[in-house]
Amino acid sequence: MRILITAGGTSEKIDDVRAITNHSSGKLGKAIAEAFSAEGATIDYITTKQALHPDNDEATIHLIESTADLAAKLNELMTAHRYTAVIHSMAVSDFTPESSVTIEDLQDTIAAKPDDLALALKEKVRERTEKKISSDTDHLVIVLKKNPKVIQQIKQLQPETILVGFKLLVDVPMIQLLDVAKASMEKNDADFILANDLAEISGEKHHGYLINRHHKVKEAQTKSEIAQLIKQEVLKLEEAK
Amino acid sequence: MRILITAGGTSEKIDDVRAITNHSSGKLGKAIAEAFSAEGATIDYITTKQALHPDNDEATIHLIESTADLAAKLNELMTAHRYTAVIHSMAVSDFTPESSVTIEDLQDTIAAKPDDLALALKEKVRERTEKKISSDTDHLVIVLKKNPKVIQQIKQLQPETILVGFKLLVDVPMIQLLDVAKASMEKNDADFILANDLAEISGEKHHGYLINRHHKVKEAQTKSEIAQLIKQEVLKLEEAK
Repeated sequence: MRILITAGGTSEKIDDVRAITNHSSGKLGKAIAEAFSAEGATIDYITTKQALHPDNDEATIHLIESTADLAAKLNELMTAHRYTAVIHSMAVSDFTPESSVTIEDLQDTIAAKPDDLALALKEKVRERTEKKISSDTDHLVIVLKKNPKVIQQIKQLQPETILVGFKLLVDVPMIQLLDVAKASMEKNDADFILANDLAEISGEKHHGYLINRHHKVKEAQTKSEIAQLIKQEVLKLEEAK
Repeated sequence: MRILITAGGTSEKIDDVRAITNHSSGKLGKAIAEAFSAEGATIDYITTKQALHPDNDEATIHLIESTADLAAKLNELMTAHRYTAVIHSMAVSDFTPESSVTIEDLQDTIAAKPDDLALALKEKVRERTEKKISSDTDHLVIVLKKNPKVIQQIKQLQPETILVGFKLLVDVPMIQLLDVAKASMEKNDADFILANDLAEISGEKHHGYLINRHHKVKEAQTKSEIAQLIKQEVLKLEEAK
């Protein structure tokens, strides 16, 4: 049994010294790796330098930074190996910085009434010579463009793998959380979604719902309970195949 | 002898799951703490959870996240204790997110011709109800406002302390680096500036210039050389007082 786990949070460079990062401690990913390692699984583990990760004897660690790195690494690993399951717990940036300008530059650019404002701002930046953004302005404007959805690669590369996706919302009613999770399952062709709410995560306490394709919901209260639940449900589905 | 060291990089929240972070490993700060600890100094060390830091028996660690946290902690510590020197190596965000909108929202707001665009965008955000920024847009725009310069607090709080500031540029000629460092020394009333260029930092190799008020420049090639140089020059200046 070979398992691919992604964990931690991506970071997208603004310039050479600044980045937009998605926060994730990596603790849950580590717990999931330990749960599968205890079953004798071979584990590939994609994460970042900042996140906690399992020991080297439990998993092969692949370090990445950005969403583009993640997409490339997933493609490489999923082309080389067949995975029983992919547990995609990494917090992935939806957007990546495209251009950074002062608010004065923004207003100048808009005054020229461009057809495509985002494109015009990219050109504005290209005219600039300094590598680090000047701090001689009261307001800085960063324009970000949408990243491709990395999770959608997974079933395209291996339709047979069991895909566990994650959905994190912030302080929403349970019904809304489950609805968003179901929509994410459809859109990404996932077999399970672990739905969780940041307002219900602190330390080892981690409230989560694991939803399957038949919309059955199982609940867990801690990171290790979530890890065990994911392991059990993945193994059960693999046996039933 | 009591020394205050800041190290690592601040991070400024965009929303509950995303932040803009200034990258800094914390290795140089750790080396500086070790150099002063070897002289028997009592060390307060302000850093972040992500950065490497010295052992607890070498320094009292104070964890912060944002530039505002840093300003508050500096104020607290410098009100409670008298420091021989403050070594301010932390990479501090010049800007903090003020509002995040879709590019469509930005264009709508501009079309209403507000007197103050940044303020109008803040109001736009206030009208919104969701806590996490929607990802249903091709381009997202983050407006950041300038942070107060934390380094300027230091001599205001303790005119007698020896202040070592840091200036990091990216791939510039040496003359420009030294000029910018001198200007930073004047503006922030620093006694020394450690000027360095990201293009000349990799692993333990870390090229830096330590400049004093008389514009004398000393050079170092590694993190431990920089740490030793700062320690020696601070002790020398303290003795000469």
